[in-house]
Amino acid sequence: MNGKMKAIMKHKREPGAELTEVDIPEVGDLDVLIKVKATSICGTDVHIYNWDEWSESRVKPPYVFGHEFAGEVVEVGEKVTKVQVGDYVSAETHIVCHQCPQCLTGQFHICENTKIIGVDTQGCFAEYVALPEENMWKNPVDMPVDMASIQEPMGNAVHTVLNGDVAGKTIAIIGCGPIGLMAVGVAKAAGASLVLAFDVNPYRLELAEKMGASVTVHSGKEDPVKKAKDLTDGHGVDVVCEMSGHPVAMDQGFKMVTNGGRVSILSLPVKPVHIDITNDVVFKGIHVQGITGRKMFETWQQVSRLLQSEQVDVSPILTHHLPIEEFEKGFELMNEGKCGKVVLHP
Amino acid sequence: MNGKMKAIMKHKREPGAELTEVDIPEVGDLDVLIKVKATSICGTDVHIYNWDEWSESRVKPPYVFGHEFAGEVVEVGEKVTKVQVGDYVSAETHIVCHQCPQCLTGQFHICENTKIIGVDTQGCFAEYVALPEENMWKNPVDMPVDMASIQEPMGNAVHTVLNGDVAGKTIAIIGCGPIGLMAVGVAKAAGASLVLAFDVNPYRLELAEKMGASVTVHSGKEDPVKKAKDLTDGHGVDVVCEMSGHPVAMDQGFKMVTNGGRVSILSLPVKPVHIDITNDVVFKGIHVQGITGRKMFETWQQVSRLLQSEQVDVSPILTHHLPIEEFEKGFELMNEGKCGKVVLHP
Amino acid sequence: MNGKMKAIMKHKREPGAELTEVDIPEVGDLDVLIKVKATSICGTDVHIYNWDEWSESRVKPPYVFGHEFAGEVVEVGEKVTKVQVGDYVSAETHIVCHQCPQCLTGQFHICENTKIIGVDTQGCFAEYVALPEENMWKNPVDMPVDMASIQEPMGNAVHTVLNGDVAGKTIAIIGCGPIGLMAVGVAKAAGASLVLAFDVNPYRLELAEKMGASVTVHSGKEDPVKKAKDLTDGHGVDVVCEMSGHPVAMDQGFKMVTNGGRVSILSLPVKPVHIDITNDVVFKGIHVQGITGRKMFETWQQVSRLLQSEQVDVSPILTHHLPIEEFEKGFELMNEGKCGKVVLHP
Amino acid sequence: MNGKMKAIMKHKREPGAELTEVDIPEVGDLDVLIKVKATSICGTDVHIYNWDEWSESRVKPPYVFGHEFAGEVVEVGEKVTKVQVGDYVSAETHIVCHQCPQCLTGQFHICENTKIIGVDTQGCFAEYVALPEENMWKNPVDMPVDMASIQEPMGNAVHTVLNGDVAGKTIAIIGCGPIGLMAVGVAKAAGASLVLAFDVNPYRLELAEKMGASVTVHSGKEDPVKKAKDLTDGHGVDVVCEMSGHPVAMDQGFKMVTNGGRVSILSLPVKPVHIDITNDVVFKGIHVQGITGRKMFETWQQVSRLLQSEQVDVSPILTHHLPIEEFEKGFELMNEGKCGKVVLHP
Repeated sequence: MNGKMKAIMKHKREPGAELTEVDIPEVGDLDVLIKVKATSICGTDVHIYNWDEWSESRVKPPYVFGHEFAGEVVEVGEKVTKVQVGDYVSAETHIVCHQCPQCLTGQFHICENTKIIGVDTQGCFAEYVALPEENMWKNPVDMPVDMASIQEPMGNAVHTVLNGDVAGKTIAIIGCGPIGLMAVGVAKAAGASLVLAFDVNPYRLELAEKMGASVTVHSGKEDPVKKAKDLTDGHGVDVVCEMSGHPVAMDQGFKMVTNGGRVSILSLPVKPVHIDITNDVVFKGIHVQGITGRKMFETWQQVSRLLQSEQVDVSPILTHHLPIEEFEKGFELMNEGKCGKVVLHP
Repeated sequence: MNGKMKAIMKHKREPGAELTEVDIPEVGDLDVLIKVKATSICGTDVHIYNWDEWSESRVKPPYVFGHEFAGEVVEVGEKVTKVQVGDYVSAETHIVCHQCPQCLTGQFHICENTKIIGVDTQGCFAEYVALPEENMWKNPVDMPVDMASIQEPMGNAVHTVLNGDVAGKTIAIIGCGPIGLMAVGVAKAAGASLVLAFDVNPYRLELAEKMGASVTVHSGKEDPVKKAKDLTDGHGVDVVCEMSGHPVAMDQGFKMVTNGGRVSILSLPVKPVHIDITNDVVFKGIHVQGITGRKMFETWQQVSRLLQSEQVDVSPILTHHLPIEEFEKGFELMNEGKCGKVVLHP
Repeated sequence: MNGKMKAIMKHKREPGAELTEVDIPEVGDLDVLIKVKATSICGTDVHIYNWDEWSESRVKPPYVFGHEFAGEVVEVGEKVTKVQVGDYVSAETHIVCHQCPQCLTGQFHICENTKIIGVDTQGCFAEYVALPEENMWKNPVDMPVDMASIQEPMGNAVHTVLNGDVAGKTIAIIGCGPIGLMAVGVAKAAGASLVLAFDVNPYRLELAEKMGASVTVHSGKEDPVKKAKDLTDGHGVDVVCEMSGHPVAMDQGFKMVTNGGRVSILSLPVKPVHIDITNDVVFKGIHVQGITGRKMFETWQQVSRLLQSEQVDVSPILTHHLPIEEFEKGFELMNEGKCGKVVLHP
Repeated sequence: MNGKMKAIMKHKREPGAELTEVDIPEVGDLDVLIKVKATSICGTDVHIYNWDEWSESRVKPPYVFGHEFAGEVVEVGEKVTKVQVGDYVSAETHIVCHQCPQCLTGQFHICENTKIIGVDTQGCFAEYVALPEENMWKNPVDMPVDMASIQEPMGNAVHTVLNGDVAGKTIAIIGCGPIGLMAVGVAKAAGASLVLAFDVNPYRLELAEKMGASVTVHSGKEDPVKKAKDLTDGHGVDVVCEMSGHPVAMDQGFKMVTNGGRVSILSLPVKPVHIDITNDVVFKGIHVQGITGRKMFETWQQVSRLLQSEQVDVSPILTHHLPIEEFEKGFELMNEGKCGKVVLHP
């Protein structure tokens, strides 16, 4: 498709971004072109917008960023066989190599050569985006576009929470950013008997309650470990989902998990963390899991079904809907933590 | 404790039972004596009451039958260390040997030498029952006695449903007797995206709906396999819980499960069943699980927590509450299928 | 590549096959052309050769059959990116759709729309074969071609045996055809403490011993169930791998497995089988697994490594090596059961 | 049994121990008295002998220490039902509570209230030891006493190595003390395709080779991470068993494991360890397991069978056999690292 489109460019190696007009991307043989209906802002996008250390080392302006979206396929490459014009899709953001041992054994989400859409390639903060056919996930026709656009981060929540037993278990969600909030909803939907939500942001603790947390704890005002023990007859929780990235909160997670419990870590602490391996890992016989991305596409199936069946209701998290022109307001809200998910409409 | 008590005796090798007065049982060194507050009727009790072929070969009248209950500990044996007078308890009904390979590897529920309370030993359809300390499960003090008394059969439901992934899965419950009905509630609570309930009894299909079934199917009026396929885009369901014991229904279960799915069988068909191993098991790469009893005591923990957290609400199933004197009415209701659980009060 | 090649054609809808000259196959955009160095005969090929009921319903002569091989890539299609001319390869025989729920959740081996090389498409009993790039498995350069050609059936053995714990377990292999024999070697290599091999063919029982069976049992001369129980203090074996397809042997498998054990079925019995669900599956709390194909490509990795590390030595099974011209002798050997694997050299 | 016996006492709160004569212990109702035939020295015993910080905080001299042994039951308490005089036994060293959530869910090895024989209670460095019936493990009558005495530490090795898939996997054993050496043998027996053994002690690296290591690496002379990567085409190993307790070696373990791999930690580093959670755990999507004790008694079954079937040959590790009177020489050898296991004979 020829023509121009609006796009949010990470234009320079400095904080900020710019809404400009660029060419609609070309479609390779195995690619599809999607008209973006809704695109939501991820914490990663905020890092890129703010131009932190990590962004500086990884991304290469000028380029279009953004990777969470829902849209309609408007053109398909010559060799495309599984997707058709008119399909209503979202996309897995990991582009994988199919050649490393991880890909060959079906663990695509930890491919050694992963490229991430909107980080390493052109993204979706735009009217159109061209992406590999194999990354498409077809949405149910009646799923609202805002909901469909946040399936990718909800995949992180689902991958973290459901990476072990949950029904009849006690579970702590540490860190109530958008993914943590979705994790609260997933844990509740999956039958957890106690869902504790920890954060220092009252706005988000309130959202956690709306998502179904049994108890919300302001980690700055109450001792999280003591609270978790008190609510579990002194034994600690069965599962900890670490989504804060704070070394202190992470340590609290290791202290509050019960013997034989599970600590699933999705967060990315910026420095190495001190862990008391002997007392908090070995003697307790716990399992620690690093969680990245989403299982391709097992997690997408779970997400889609949990949303469609209304087992998880994400509406409390969809707090802000903005035209793409107001993207700066969206990033501001994210930086202030005064929002759930911010969805942009191109 | 000396004295007499009321008890429902399986008195003779013939249909029926008798409410009589017998001695309060003696308490061995490792036993506890429980004052029964509520005791519910199991399908197994109905077999014994009706005096079918299986009962004839297994039980030895005269004896007190019944095995589901909740009550208070009123006396403990000399060597008892973990239970105290005043404890509010229910009991695991498998008395295990601790010596066979299964017991030695922690699989107590499939002990090679299991004895079942109320079948192989004196049961709980009485004012008092004496049982081994190690079979006790302590109930939360505020759990209603009727709810507490049905934890044992709910354990069967939980053991069946949660013996594999459920969240975001499609699941069929075949057979909506009391355990099937509880399985519906457990599947829903554990995040299943579609819960199909099959039976030929409209009364029980209505209860299934109250327990949270997405769709109920009268297997005599609609083709169960076709229905299951239609509701899953032709792919079939991820999980089948077989609780009917009917060879035809079982075969339908094998036909409606999707490739790679799970068939968990709790029911006890009276004759060997024809199974199309090649097409329904091997080519589909499915897993079939025999389910018996409850994991000791992992399942009890799950049951207790699912009830206490109100993730599962069993109140629709607790349809009948009778004084022990009216036990015959209870068995009649069970034989007619016009009930959920029938709870007797001694 | 233009030109002619030798190929074994299933030429007509009748028993037998014919060595003829045909065109070297064309290479599609995503295909590679392989010069076949060794190709081995599978039981499936024998069915096709003998023209049994199954073949009649499935295959469409005239076509080239055969699917087990090792060879060198001599040409690649235009869009091929992961395989190069000169690569030494074998091939996964399932061509999958990447669109069904099974493919989307990484369970490619049970794809709902599987096509099988040499059954539904042109096969490898020929000098050259053209196959999809994505089905290629790269072999270590120093792996002998005969060994490399039998990795596909060894994948069946590995998939069956390693589909659960083996180390320190007692295991029965029922049916000592080539895959059963490989299963014996895999079970031994994976640390089984007792490997029982059952068959009625003394030639193959002898091979089973060479592959590492602890005890071989002639099922026609000794009672297999009694023998299995005697060798396990009366408890039965932990794992049964059913590879015979005989209803009686299958029933024996269900009888000899211990409580909580695993029965993994790779065989394809021609008729529905009677199974005593109540006593042999439910009360014993066992797991039954249907096994088909190989995990793509997790199983291939296991096979390749077990061979390369010499944890499994398949040399006793590689009993016959023939020029492709003598294929009829190969099929005769297979029909008589007087061989391990028969490898043809084009 | 009345009378006196020889025993190695941790006599005072200072380094060393003393062989003295004490009363043969009394046998409680649920205990058995064992005549010790062989008792081996554990690293824990060395800590107690050397009187390090941990010992000072935990053990209460004077008492008999030691916990690894094999012997014959010579007397049983009044309520003992599963063990008989004449039984040939070893013992699980964890005495558990049967009341905490871990015990109630069958995870006895991580009981919240564990007491350890020879640490918290009287041990077996003596002619006789009295222990709870439920801790007994019956040995095959023909197992040599020295081999039987080291089953407890071999249980640690088995629990660590077999806590995930091993067959066809690449595995690194970091730290070749006696348990590390047994881990090498177990990994080899369980079908690992590559077993790398790391240590800085040439004596023990030589033993690792005898136990079946594919490659031994002197971590002081070669870069362990580079070596592990080089031997795995740059991908890293599938499994790391950390048995050294050194922070540097532990970090190397995290660096050498492949994406999606497993790090099982049995060692007890004395201080909190710095871990690069983001790069070494989360982005790699690995699993980290704390390993303590042995599964009761699943691990014992595995150990017993691996030894009896000769899948694992521990004879290279049984380097020293001493009369109990020469215990000081035994501790010296252990302190110098110039030994495998040291077995004492009372």
